[in-house]
Amino acid sequence: MEKKITVLPGDGIGPEVVASAVSVLQSVGKRYHHTFHIAYGAIGGSAIDQHNDPLPQETIALCEESDAILLGAVGGPKWDQNPAELRPEKGLLRIRKHFDLFSNLRPVQAIPSLLKASPLKEDIVKDVDLLIVRELTGGLYFGEPRQRTEKAALDTLVYTRFEVERIVDSAFQLARVRRGKLTSVDKANVLESSRLWRQIVDEKKVGYPDVEVEHSLVDSTAMKLITNPAAYDVVVTENMFGDILSDEASVITGSLGVLPSASIRSDNFGLYEPVHGSAPEIAGLGIANPAATILSVAMMLKYSFGLNEEAAEIERAVAAVFEDGYFTGDLATPGSRVLTTAEWTEKVINE
Amino acid sequence: MEKKITVLPGDGIGPEVVASAVSVLQSVGKRYHHTFHIAYGAIGGSAIDQHNDPLPQETIALCEESDAILLGAVGGPKWDQNPAELRPEKGLLRIRKHFDLFSNLRPVQAIPSLLKASPLKEDIVKDVDLLIVRELTGGLYFGEPRQRTEKAALDTLVYTRFEVERIVDSAFQLARVRRGKLTSVDKANVLESSRLWRQIVDEKKVGYPDVEVEHSLVDSTAMKLITNPAAYDVVVTENMFGDILSDEASVITGSLGVLPSASIRSDNFGLYEPVHGSAPEIAGLGIANPAATILSVAMMLKYSFGLNEEAAEIERAVAAVFEDGYFTGDLATPGSRVLTTAEWTEKVINE
Ligand SMILES: CC(C)[C@H](C(=O)O)[C@@H](O)C(=O)O
Ligand SMILES: CC(C)[C@H](C(=O)O)[C@@H](O)C(=O)O
Repeated sequence: MEKKITVLPGDGIGPEVVASAVSVLQSVGKRYHHTFHIAYGAIGGSAIDQHNDPLPQETIALCEESDAILLGAVGGPKWDQNPAELRPEKGLLRIRKHFDLFSNLRPVQAIPSLLKASPLKEDIVKDVDLLIVRELTGGLYFGEPRQRTEKAALDTLVYTRFEVERIVDSAFQLARVRRGKLTSVDKANVLESSRLWRQIVDEKKVGYPDVEVEHSLVDSTAMKLITNPAAYDVVVTENMFGDILSDEASVITGSLGVLPSASIRSDNFGLYEPVHGSAPEIAGLGIANPAATILSVAMMLKYSFGLNEEAAEIERAVAAVFEDGYFTGDLATPGSRVLTTAEWTEKVINE
Repeated sequence: MEKKITVLPGDGIGPEVVASAVSVLQSVGKRYHHTFHIAYGAIGGSAIDQHNDPLPQETIALCEESDAILLGAVGGPKWDQNPAELRPEKGLLRIRKHFDLFSNLRPVQAIPSLLKASPLKEDIVKDVDLLIVRELTGGLYFGEPRQRTEKAALDTLVYTRFEVERIVDSAFQLARVRRGKLTSVDKANVLESSRLWRQIVDEKKVGYPDVEVEHSLVDSTAMKLITNPAAYDVVVTENMFGDILSDEASVITGSLGVLPSASIRSDNFGLYEPVHGSAPEIAGLGIANPAATILSVAMMLKYSFGLNEEAAEIERAVAAVFEDGYFTGDLATPGSRVLTTAEWTEKVINE
């Protein structure tokens, strides 16, 4: 297989973790006889510094010629006071919309050797294995009108049937190849958009008799993610609820630093990035763990390229290195064996 | 002092827990020489059954003649398939709006004897003592337009300056009589309404030099409520974010069953209710813990009537009964001393 990948290192620890992930990708390519062509582009704060634009036209052009995008992280205090259009995260919002990356996948899985870093009791989180499917290009994030004066401000939460159908369908398809359980999250006791959402889920479920569906209100889901997170398999929800719930879910198992994500569209083109941020305070120190970005590459192989075996191999290698007790500085707990980002990556490649 | 209180028992365990709270209220009245006149009204499912209306006109009239409202809980599977206007919770939404109860106060405090029921590790939650101030009559809950067809649906997130100013002011005032820390939660990197919100918080803070203010994004707040909940003092946010975050916060200390709430307006008229739901599955069994409703009465005494000493006395009594190891069936853990709802209430009154 021959694929073109655009890599957008971004800010903070982005360049470091992306470098690790690219070297893992290349070693997988060598081993399985695939050729991955890598091109680098600018996004976020560093793109603002160089091009006065968090998503320069050159970057869009590069991505358009590629089969997938790998992103590090964007943002940092340096750009926090910029106007909205010149904020690093605006690059993220625009790239999602431009490429119609409507389906954001955020898996959360308990990793035994990281559980001691979890704020939750071990028996609550040890069996967690869930996947949040967040709608990423609609709702309050992009709805019109949106306006602000000194006297009032408004945003619009709008969803079309088409937008809801495609994300719900993709969630059903994911549920059927996992444990066959789908939780659809809404606020149908209050919102019209949620009532349409719920209706469409009920229509769609007829086509997936093998999937068990439940509706759950967003407030009670926020509770159950803490009291009984192991009860979830696939969770599907709209953009803003998904933003909140996926971040909430990301801290329950203690493995925030190692969580990957995918943002894909119907033809499987996708953008892959770690869930963690740009962590400017540790940038350049060689202590950032690259697992989240390496696992994002595994998601790319699986979801964009259909290379399931190669993806599983990367996941296995990452798990093995953690099992062996190797950590990087950012995740270290007393007694763990601490490697630099580059050394830790070597371990994964050797596995 | 002489006060009129309308009691709305509602559904499920509502009538039981409200009966306990009223007997505590009356015993406080006797001891401190206050007269509390109690009138009973219908709301929620039982009001639908009796009057085909989750908030009958008679109930509104009763409340209008009162100095405060005590509510049990509404809802149950019996009414789950009703159309939106005939759902029990519609009664709640309407009473909030009708009486302009814009400020919803949800305190969450660690209770030592309940910590073992917490899903979080004890060292994370043992010092939790936070207060969520949720805007309750604006935002997506009531914004117009709101509409739904087969092809699309929309809700409107709108806030006026007036609405934001009054909730932010009340949060500042609460922060200054607590630990002097205010966290304002928004999604200002995406929403126009959040940008106005943030701007108003920044304007207001000049008037409260004794309060330390931080802005926090809703997604990262959802994380920090789990990883470091003890860091919060007062948290202020808009209606939908507050719905999600206050429910999330309610489960962290293991004391969901005992959390009170207040929904008040500027003249201190207010509605007080437990955070827990109507729990129809345990209704009538005499095992529901009334602490949340009793503590809601304490909030009434404090916020609506300014009876701080009486309120503190109730809080002390409830804490003492838990400290002594007495529980009701719903909260019992192996080894705890289990009383019925009525017996447990007696213990509180004796304290
Ligand atoms: C940076 C921000 C705009 C973004 C979002 O809200 O979608 C982030 O929180 C995320 O979840 O990727
Ligand atoms: C029942 C529902 C409409 C209500 C809300 O969303 O406000 C409830 O969740 C609450 O928080 O009181």
